[in-house]
Amino acid sequence: MYDIAVLGGGPAGLAAAVSARVRSKTVAVISNAMTENGLYRSKLVPNYPGVPDISGSALLEAMHAQAEKLGAGFVEKRLLSAVYGNGQWYLGAEDEMIEARALILAGGVVRSERFAGEEKFLGRGVSYCATCDGMFFREKHVVVYGETAAAEREANYLREIGCIVVYLSRRDGKGALADTIPFLRMRTLEVCGEETVQRVLVDGETIQCDGVFLLRPSVAPVDLLPGLALEEGHIAVNRAMETNLPGVYAAGDCTGKPYQIAKAVGEGQVAALSAVAWLDQRKDG
Amino acid sequence: MYDIAVLGGGPAGLAAAVSARVRSKTVAVISNAMTENGLYRSKLVPNYPGVPDISGSALLEAMHAQAEKLGAGFVEKRLLSAVYGNGQWYLGAEDEMIEARALILAGGVVRSERFAGEEKFLGRGVSYCATCDGMFFREKHVVVYGETAAAEREANYLREIGCIVVYLSRRDGKGALADTIPFLRMRTLEVCGEETVQRVLVDGETIQCDGVFLLRPSVAPVDLLPGLALEEGHIAVNRAMETNLPGVYAAGDCTGKPYQIAKAVGEGQVAALSAVAWLDQRKDG
Repeated sequence: MYDIAVLGGGPAGLAAAVSARVRSKTVAVISNAMTENGLYRSKLVPNYPGVPDISGSALLEAMHAQAEKLGAGFVEKRLLSAVYGNGQWYLGAEDEMIEARALILAGGVVRSERFAGEEKFLGRGVSYCATCDGMFFREKHVVVYGETAAAEREANYLREIGCIVVYLSRRDGKGALADTIPFLRMRTLEVCGEETVQRVLVDGETIQCDGVFLLRPSVAPVDLLPGLALEEGHIAVNRAMETNLPGVYAAGDCTGKPYQIAKAVGEGQVAALSAVAWLDQRKDG
Repeated sequence: MYDIAVLGGGPAGLAAAVSARVRSKTVAVISNAMTENGLYRSKLVPNYPGVPDISGSALLEAMHAQAEKLGAGFVEKRLLSAVYGNGQWYLGAEDEMIEARALILAGGVVRSERFAGEEKFLGRGVSYCATCDGMFFREKHVVVYGETAAAEREANYLREIGCIVVYLSRRDGKGALADTIPFLRMRTLEVCGEETVQRVLVDGETIQCDGVFLLRPSVAPVDLLPGLALEEGHIAVNRAMETNLPGVYAAGDCTGKPYQIAKAVGEGQVAALSAVAWLDQRKDG
């Protein structure tokens, strides 16, 4: 059981982890691999105060190492579900269940894209998790959509357990994808069927399949936490970085523009200290 | 004429200067000497993301050098007045007048202390500026209250032009104060007189004098900008770091707790980018 789970391992999440650890709270940072963070590919960060002209990867690595040295835990998995009960959160990250008292949402720009048919067939052929649902599709045809190395590995896993896999991506290049898996670069995707999934339309072309794995880098916060208030497409927060849900804070790009490192880091710190104060108050009460 | 004047040279002000310069705005940072900043005396900063275990002075110097290298101007003087007219600000910093289109308030924790009698005798013996008003007190007895090396230098200046000076401070040690100036460590101060100042009470003891120079590190923002809205003793801002005055932004400790570097830096960046957007809009309009 952690005091605080931080969802996102970019500057906002790492700053939150640092500040929470300095205040002696236990912290788990749940995120994709650092190399998947957009900042990691930035050649030059000109405006992070105190660290002139550093590369994005070096800055991210420094923040990560700092949080790790202070004792933050890291769970490099995709968070798929969040359920509140017994006064705490149960967070499903692929095959792992993480428990925490407070949440800090720091998952970056909120993408709320849904593919046509996605919602209709969710749980009826559409899945967000290969390790959770893969076994149901052994010997069957599945289409996997992903943008990250983690998604490529999940596609490989499906192939290994006996699924017949086609991999779709908006990214160029097969990456870590097994040679036995056909790779298609796509723009649009539609999930079709009757009771369950029967096929997808990829840029208008039909592919027959029984299952569709949509392995986005992260589940949108509103899907994770029903009732979370948004404001113009971002998570609504006040100056203490409180969301409308008790014990749930947000920081960084997910709270709105400017999408900048210093802004994210400052908000991460404030979110952490607000969460710390909230935890301390609950302990006393 | 600067695009943006930043009032305060701590992390919030320097972050604002960095972000404004990256966006090619001209910037003047008006502040006390860096060595007067509270952070400068901090031995260890454990929680500034990306820069683990740095001293406060080294971090401040790094931020200052970064802003300077990017082309920010620095005015190491006490800001004494701010007047708006002709669509711009006129900022009186001791003997210098600085002109700017937008303001970012980043002067640190808002101190609103007034000494007893201070307001009553303002302009009638009480002055905030030695270089402005010193000449009126040649050959006369003046009491100088200060906490900074700059105040000590102003007291020396008064002595040099012929004032008979007693220096009061809550700080220990005479610092740069001339040997010819008596130094008194004080707790309380009251300014007394009839039409004009005639004496002060220092911890209850009377000192006869004709003038009192109150050389605080900075003039409180509400005194500088009448009408500036506060909220529980801090400058009221929204998430874009806008104050209630158009073209005036605030960042850092002056906007409220937590009094932390990352928070200050993030707010400085947001304030700068809001000011940049406001300036660009006015130019188009």
